[in-house]
Amino acid sequence: MRRRNLGDLLRHVHLAGALSRSELADRMGLNRSTIMALTAELSAAGLVSEELPGDTGRAGRPSLVVRPERDRAHVLAFDVRVDRLVAARVGLGGEILDRREAVRSRAGADLEDVVGVLAGFGRELRRGARPGSVCVGVGAAYCGMIRPDDGTVRYGPYVGWVDQAFGVELGSRLGLPVLVGNEAHLGALAERDRGVGRGFDNLIYLHGDVGVGGGIIVGGKLLGGDGGYGCELGHMMVNPYDGRPCMCGSRGCLEAEVGEHALIDAAGRSGELSGREGVRAVVEAAGRGDAAAEEALHRIGDWLGIGVANLINLFNPGMVIFGGMLRDVYPGSAAQVGHRVEANAMVISREQVRLRVSALGDDVTLVGAAELAFSRLLASPLEVLAEMRRRTAHRAAPRKRALAL
Amino acid sequence: MRRRNLGDLLRHVHLAGALSRSELADRMGLNRSTIMALTAELSAAGLVSEELPGDTGRAGRPSLVVRPERDRAHVLAFDVRVDRLVAARVGLGGEILDRREAVRSRAGADLEDVVGVLAGFGRELRRGARPGSVCVGVGAAYCGMIRPDDGTVRYGPYVGWVDQAFGVELGSRLGLPVLVGNEAHLGALAERDRGVGRGFDNLIYLHGDVGVGGGIIVGGKLLGGDGGYGCELGHMMVNPYDGRPCMCGSRGCLEAEVGEHALIDAAGRSGELSGREGVRAVVEAAGRGDAAAEEALHRIGDWLGIGVANLINLFNPGMVIFGGMLRDVYPGSAAQVGHRVEANAMVISREQVRLRVSALGDDVTLVGAAELAFSRLLASPLEVLAEMRRRTAHRAAPRKRALAL
Repeated sequence: MRRRNLGDLLRHVHLAGALSRSELADRMGLNRSTIMALTAELSAAGLVSEELPGDTGRAGRPSLVVRPERDRAHVLAFDVRVDRLVAARVGLGGEILDRREAVRSRAGADLEDVVGVLAGFGRELRRGARPGSVCVGVGAAYCGMIRPDDGTVRYGPYVGWVDQAFGVELGSRLGLPVLVGNEAHLGALAERDRGVGRGFDNLIYLHGDVGVGGGIIVGGKLLGGDGGYGCELGHMMVNPYDGRPCMCGSRGCLEAEVGEHALIDAAGRSGELSGREGVRAVVEAAGRGDAAAEEALHRIGDWLGIGVANLINLFNPGMVIFGGMLRDVYPGSAAQVGHRVEANAMVISREQVRLRVSALGDDVTLVGAAELAFSRLLASPLEVLAEMRRRTAHRAAPRKRALAL
Repeated sequence: MRRRNLGDLLRHVHLAGALSRSELADRMGLNRSTIMALTAELSAAGLVSEELPGDTGRAGRPSLVVRPERDRAHVLAFDVRVDRLVAARVGLGGEILDRREAVRSRAGADLEDVVGVLAGFGRELRRGARPGSVCVGVGAAYCGMIRPDDGTVRYGPYVGWVDQAFGVELGSRLGLPVLVGNEAHLGALAERDRGVGRGFDNLIYLHGDVGVGGGIIVGGKLLGGDGGYGCELGHMMVNPYDGRPCMCGSRGCLEAEVGEHALIDAAGRSGELSGREGVRAVVEAAGRGDAAAEEALHRIGDWLGIGVANLINLFNPGMVIFGGMLRDVYPGSAAQVGHRVEANAMVISREQVRLRVSALGDDVTLVGAAELAFSRLLASPLEVLAEMRRRTAHRAAPRKRALAL
């Protein structure tokens, strides 16, 4: 109980940035003396600090403000995207303190290469941390289907991986346990915790890249299903007649009809720029009034709208969020999406739902990876801090480091 | 905590029928003296009884067997289907002790008529209960979208109701609070608790009637969404080109392509038997080798398979269950469903899923309504028993009864 309260308090300040003791008491439904005792423990551990607020403009003794100690506890967050590798050191409280990025070809890359680059980034990022700052977790987002238990990539078609022990390999290179999640799952959690979905217990996040991934939050929790492989909304069949071929081997999947290739082909630009640049070129051309580009966005919006209407019928969500390349695409296809939702979603479910673009932009999956990395600390702060101190102390000893590398 | 333990113990014997004290201790993770104390309280309240088991064939003192007292606590369960009204008295433990049924025309029926028939059934069923048996709850299944808070039918197209205060009206006629749920939601819970889905935390139940409803269990809980209107898998668009018109105003919805009318039309029998009889006639004809009937089942199976594959991708469920008229239809269309699942569902999710027909048959929604009715008792047994004793004692006094009616 005490452990849970410590974790809850730390989560509140981690997500809010700074909260007074009385705000914490309100949010947690605890009395102020309990809040004071919990804060004292977290403060002694170096995870939060307390300070007097600025002038509150009110009479009486002001309530002390509790802040997360971003320079004393951090995580490493990694993001394996189709076209790049990203790594960051993120402080408690969620600020990205430092980052590294490598563009890579879209062709297949082997596990060792990817892990090698990421582990190198990880070492650099940790060396840059303030003395005494503890690495309290490592999280990674990956553009494929992930086994939650051990971070194995079961299926990552766009990178070309099947059953690759990504989490274990990266963990052994770093000498630290690594949690891995599907990028769209983590994107959904990031938007719920720090983005446009704050306060929504039922939301759907669509993440566009070459394909389209999904993260679906049901009753406050990420929908996993039996094995953690749920939310594959990109492989919802929307076009059973003349559907475009999909990487999964089928045809007419949502991602085949609304992904990068579909948009660029529909705009008649398949010989030109590809990937994210290609998508942006179409969106910009549509903004300048290019008819083919506008028409392509409308076509994508029509298929996207069928998918979104189906999802609204199934999930009765408070919000649907468009992220990744769909963040660029949605404004130009919103009318068609809206039309399909109007036509195909039950009125009772569609009357409340909001359609929005991601607030976190290109960092959404990286932020999700950081939150995954913080999750163990936020479940049992003092235990995990102690464990991670031990692990990183080991790593500081030269002999051990040599062995681990 | 004690209240929760009492409820959990009662739920275990309610669902299992009879369990020894030592089985209860194992399942609940409590020691035997706690089990004994909990059982004593429930036994004193008349909700369970204890007896020596038959010859166990083992040495040593046998563990007493705890049984639900089906004749001392019962619920009323109602089921408003498109073509009939059903009511039952169901004893603690789940046995249907008595029932009433009225066939009705499919045309619009007004709230007062339906509530009048059901309330009459309810009075008869309660009069038939053993003296001293307490009615501990009332539940109703309805073939439409239901607001959980007050049992209002928001949208029931096949009965023709929009925003009808069904739960409140039936409750005031019975003088007892009534919980109302969507028939397919309740069917999902019934199959999970008492049917083929026992032990599955992630399952999808498709309920075929004129339309197709759905109940989806995610992480052990019914998927509701923001307002409780989720699971509308029947309105997933599967045929965007030449889709059949749907009652919802759209075209190409799953229920339009696989419901009763679609099957009967596809078999070229639209002038003949309609409704459930019409479906059975097609299935029987296919069984006798009628080519048009076989072809109709295959056609239905193809669309159904697209829907099921989409659901497997989204939910990574352990089981998909076909109920209502789909229970009759599925065996003749299983090959096509399987083919679509093979082609369109991600291998990782489909490799574990089982496709099954409902084990509870035509009573699945009635059983679900009964379990909904028991839900309050199972949450706090002694409090709800006392409350319902007071309410029903009131009703036994002639003056009060006159007022309530």
